[in-house]
Amino acid sequence: MKNRSFDLTEMDLPKELKSMSYEECAKLAQVIRKKLITTVSKNGGHLSSNLGTVELTISLHRVFDSPKDKIVWDVGHQAYTHKLLTGRADKFNTIRTEGGLSGFTRPDESEHDAFVSGHSSTSISAALGIATAMKLKKDKHHTIAVLGDGALTGGESFEGLNNAGKSGTNLIIVLNYNEMSISKNVGATAKYLSTLRTKESYHKTKTAVEKVLDSTPVVGAPIKKVVRGSKNVIKDMIIHSTMFEDLGFEFVGPIDGHNIEELDEGLCAAKALGVPTVVLVNTQKGHGYPPAEANPGGYHGVGAFDLSTGNPDVVSEDSFSAIFGKKLLDIAYKDKRICAITAAMKFGTGLQYFHRALPDRFFDVGIAEQHAVTFAAGLAAGGMIPVFAVYSTFLQRSYDQLIHDLAIMDTHAVIGVDRAGIVGEDGETHQGIFDIPYLTTIPNMTIYSPSNNPELEMCLEKALLEDKGICAVRYPRGADEVRTDNRTASVDVVTHCNGSEMCILTYGRLYNEALTAQKRLLNEKEISIDIIKPVKIFPIEDSLIETLKGYKKVFIFEECYRNGSIGEKIAAKGIDCDLSAINGFVKHGKTNDLLDELGLSSFRMTEKIMRYLNEKA
Amino acid sequence: MKNRSFDLTEMDLPKELKSMSYEECAKLAQVIRKKLITTVSKNGGHLSSNLGTVELTISLHRVFDSPKDKIVWDVGHQAYTHKLLTGRADKFNTIRTEGGLSGFTRPDESEHDAFVSGHSSTSISAALGIATAMKLKKDKHHTIAVLGDGALTGGESFEGLNNAGKSGTNLIIVLNYNEMSISKNVGATAKYLSTLRTKESYHKTKTAVEKVLDSTPVVGAPIKKVVRGSKNVIKDMIIHSTMFEDLGFEFVGPIDGHNIEELDEGLCAAKALGVPTVVLVNTQKGHGYPPAEANPGGYHGVGAFDLSTGNPDVVSEDSFSAIFGKKLLDIAYKDKRICAITAAMKFGTGLQYFHRALPDRFFDVGIAEQHAVTFAAGLAAGGMIPVFAVYSTFLQRSYDQLIHDLAIMDTHAVIGVDRAGIVGEDGETHQGIFDIPYLTTIPNMTIYSPSNNPELEMCLEKALLEDKGICAVRYPRGADEVRTDNRTASVDVVTHCNGSEMCILTYGRLYNEALTAQKRLLNEKEISIDIIKPVKIFPIEDSLIETLKGYKKVFIFEECYRNGSIGEKIAAKGIDCDLSAINGFVKHGKTNDLLDELGLSSFRMTEKIMRYLNEKA
Repeated sequence: MKNRSFDLTEMDLPKELKSMSYEECAKLAQVIRKKLITTVSKNGGHLSSNLGTVELTISLHRVFDSPKDKIVWDVGHQAYTHKLLTGRADKFNTIRTEGGLSGFTRPDESEHDAFVSGHSSTSISAALGIATAMKLKKDKHHTIAVLGDGALTGGESFEGLNNAGKSGTNLIIVLNYNEMSISKNVGATAKYLSTLRTKESYHKTKTAVEKVLDSTPVVGAPIKKVVRGSKNVIKDMIIHSTMFEDLGFEFVGPIDGHNIEELDEGLCAAKALGVPTVVLVNTQKGHGYPPAEANPGGYHGVGAFDLSTGNPDVVSEDSFSAIFGKKLLDIAYKDKRICAITAAMKFGTGLQYFHRALPDRFFDVGIAEQHAVTFAAGLAAGGMIPVFAVYSTFLQRSYDQLIHDLAIMDTHAVIGVDRAGIVGEDGETHQGIFDIPYLTTIPNMTIYSPSNNPELEMCLEKALLEDKGICAVRYPRGADEVRTDNRTASVDVVTHCNGSEMCILTYGRLYNEALTAQKRLLNEKEISIDIIKPVKIFPIEDSLIETLKGYKKVFIFEECYRNGSIGEKIAAKGIDCDLSAINGFVKHGKTNDLLDELGLSSFRMTEKIMRYLNEKA
Repeated sequence: MKNRSFDLTEMDLPKELKSMSYEECAKLAQVIRKKLITTVSKNGGHLSSNLGTVELTISLHRVFDSPKDKIVWDVGHQAYTHKLLTGRADKFNTIRTEGGLSGFTRPDESEHDAFVSGHSSTSISAALGIATAMKLKKDKHHTIAVLGDGALTGGESFEGLNNAGKSGTNLIIVLNYNEMSISKNVGATAKYLSTLRTKESYHKTKTAVEKVLDSTPVVGAPIKKVVRGSKNVIKDMIIHSTMFEDLGFEFVGPIDGHNIEELDEGLCAAKALGVPTVVLVNTQKGHGYPPAEANPGGYHGVGAFDLSTGNPDVVSEDSFSAIFGKKLLDIAYKDKRICAITAAMKFGTGLQYFHRALPDRFFDVGIAEQHAVTFAAGLAAGGMIPVFAVYSTFLQRSYDQLIHDLAIMDTHAVIGVDRAGIVGEDGETHQGIFDIPYLTTIPNMTIYSPSNNPELEMCLEKALLEDKGICAVRYPRGADEVRTDNRTASVDVVTHCNGSEMCILTYGRLYNEALTAQKRLLNEKEISIDIIKPVKIFPIEDSLIETLKGYKKVFIFEECYRNGSIGEKIAAKGIDCDLSAINGFVKHGKTNDLLDELGLSSFRMTEKIMRYLNEKA
């Protein structure tokens, strides 16, 4: 080993990787793992998946020439090592903090990030697009999609596979098989892949079988003959080794994903083939960090954690998600029609309680939000009451199914819209700011936005047992922070009125901010302002509009995209209102900081109202 | 053959089917085909796919007991025979006419229609939901999903398959392989299925291979031994016969889908298995009607046609779709960056011209709207200008991809939103009334709604070569009907003003209606009203709002769902307007009749304005 610096910020990366010995690569992997663990322990983020892809990423950058070759990471949260190896080591300690590196890949952050990613199962389609553009331009470089087995449960991956096989492009799909999607791996594909995982390398076995046939002269010929007679059955069987080959790909693997030599060999083979190829790589999530190896699920997406005990902070017992999950279980004990569905987010949505207690009525469908909604509609057609708990941002995948499979027949189903509003450190791809705009475009839709735990429980119960049609109950990431003495409990409208001529209209988590603003205005400025807080926010009741007509000025604050917001709908009904909503995509940062920047904190509410009064005066 | 009536309206169906001989079944199939051909020749609708499923449907109703057993038809337009056999023969001549039978399955039309359908690839998910509800209720009946090979190219089918294999339900998936999705079959799955199609029946070949091994004592044992030594390779190969088995299903087939005896046998076998099973059935689209057999694509969805020549009326040369397709090709000749994408709707969207002339830059991705958008984003990332031409109602499937893969990076792509607005006879599942509501919730989105051919061409050119971000150009089903002397050509705002205090604001096809209303009001009532017609309808320009502020009353007419409409957004900006939009799902009927009922015809516009003036007076 020559005198090589292993300081990531000083190395000439990714170029220098190509000249490194396997021994040096192993040392670099160690350095990277240490960096990952210390950084994620401070900043939070995805640990297990990144620890699992250290060697794979090193090998990708040894075998290919990024950014000329394009690497597309599915759900970019597995790309931390990629960031460290592509000129971002010096800023790595800023990851997921405001103004710092994103926790996902972003083309505007680095030319090495070939595509934006955050939602699952898009990498094959995106990479096929990039590879096709290269083909049209006669550019011979490669495009590599890297996805985990979890991403393969999303239908878009299959749509991509179905189109990629025949594309004649230099596309390589690296399937990182780590035996775990976000909560657990689901479905037949997982089972099938686990068979592949334990198979001998395909090329080895194929050769072995051919050898057997050739080395048995008495046998070989007659079998081959019979086989030909019966439509090449055995030939089919020999060639037909994997589902991916059925879909038109060359297949390489399985490869030990922590052995850089084997990885280099496999990726070089795929590169040499020059046709769409699937490379199956076995990795271990959390590799190299014992607490994460033992409990990779706990380390999927973590807040900052204690490095010594490795205690992760996934979903707290008092979070809205947990309250939702527990209340749902309570009601489901009494009503046997209730079924719970998650798309690979059992822990994130608080459905682990339901799963443990009522496994027969619990369904983890994988990262398959489209199927989840149509499946729910099928359950409802069979007389059940389905509840799909899903993050606001991921429910975007189900838009057509909500309309076509639920709304047209006015089918009764409940959607638990988790992570509604600003989610913080995960940034643009994960903010839950579109659910109100898109859900309100769907007929037969009711939307609740409770502010605190008792309201969440009441809304869920009403949605399940009293309402009809589609009922969305939306709640933010985090826990109820309303002071106990302010804990209203209504499914309609809550008011805090003193007879002012002005009012704040808000709902959900921002109610807290409004209460603080109201107090501050009264105590510091002797200004009185009313608060109107609908809990059922849609459809907008005529009575709410009548109430608002009694005010000279209505200030509306909403944690959602402005186009299609509740405020826009209220304004359209002739109410003179000042709308504060979100103007576009919101980058990563701390939720409270972001709310403040977006003009939605109590401070900014106060400021806005004061400015109005000053201008008027 | 006993003295059986073959009058569909007199038979005791579906019960009577069970007692029929195969000879009688064949006669019935003839009667049904004749009925299908004569009815579709008058009412329009889907002919080829229905001619292909006559025997399959008869057999399904012989082997299973609908409605206790549930049949879920994917894209219900292949369910005409099912309608004839389930008590709707007397009303069959009303199909696709207002107040008559729907062209798709609807649970509110018959208890034999287990699920609503219209959009592709939902049947497996829905059937799995129904089968799961049955399992929970300990109901031993079967649920049967029937889907064509085209539907299998949609990712949701795969999500369903991935979940169904392990479900332990009485679910049967009948894969109706007819070698054709709507325009042509696409991708690796199609290729793979066509291999299966020509295979000997699986059970036959399996037995044959086992026989070979057993009957060659010198060979059989050693091979089996070697095989065991090398991780059961040949055993794997023998068992591993189809991709569906990889996914956890039992597999029956292929079956001749026009042989009722073979169908009965195969479906009975599947029924007896009592586990999730895929049955592969080979059918011929258009079977039994020579013009449709020869050209099944032309008969996919047809208007009324001439029975003697069988000349179908798919997309006319002067339709907006064709104008769009031709103009796109014109521009693409000059600009090599332009690529065209369709999701199995090459003819429907007028992209056949592009395909013929520039096949390298044309992509038919199958019924895969999610992939289409992410693939487009990938093409754009590679420097191309992608154009995705798609029906408004099907673009709903791409909502998340529009946000996540295009809008976040402000990527430039053009969406040709075809069939925007009322589509007529296809009804609720196909009306294009949500595109404006959902597209306006997406940042970095521009929407054009041209009224006539020159405007469509101008908008497309501007969207491709001048604009940034996502540009949606939307146009209705049918052709430009604006009188030549009224053919404006603008990409901004067109006005027809006489200095009135009132105006009509509308866009797209309704501009025609507004012109007629304007003339009628002037000529018959001596009432003057202005017309303001934005062509770029979103984002709403401040100048438009300023113009509208000059009017005492603004009447807005829109062919879209009211929540999220352009009118709602204009009203939210403080304009006093009277909004006429669509209040909910719109059933099937003639487009002009429907527009009138929805209050959007020139007559209803006139009426509304007169009522306002009378009330004011």
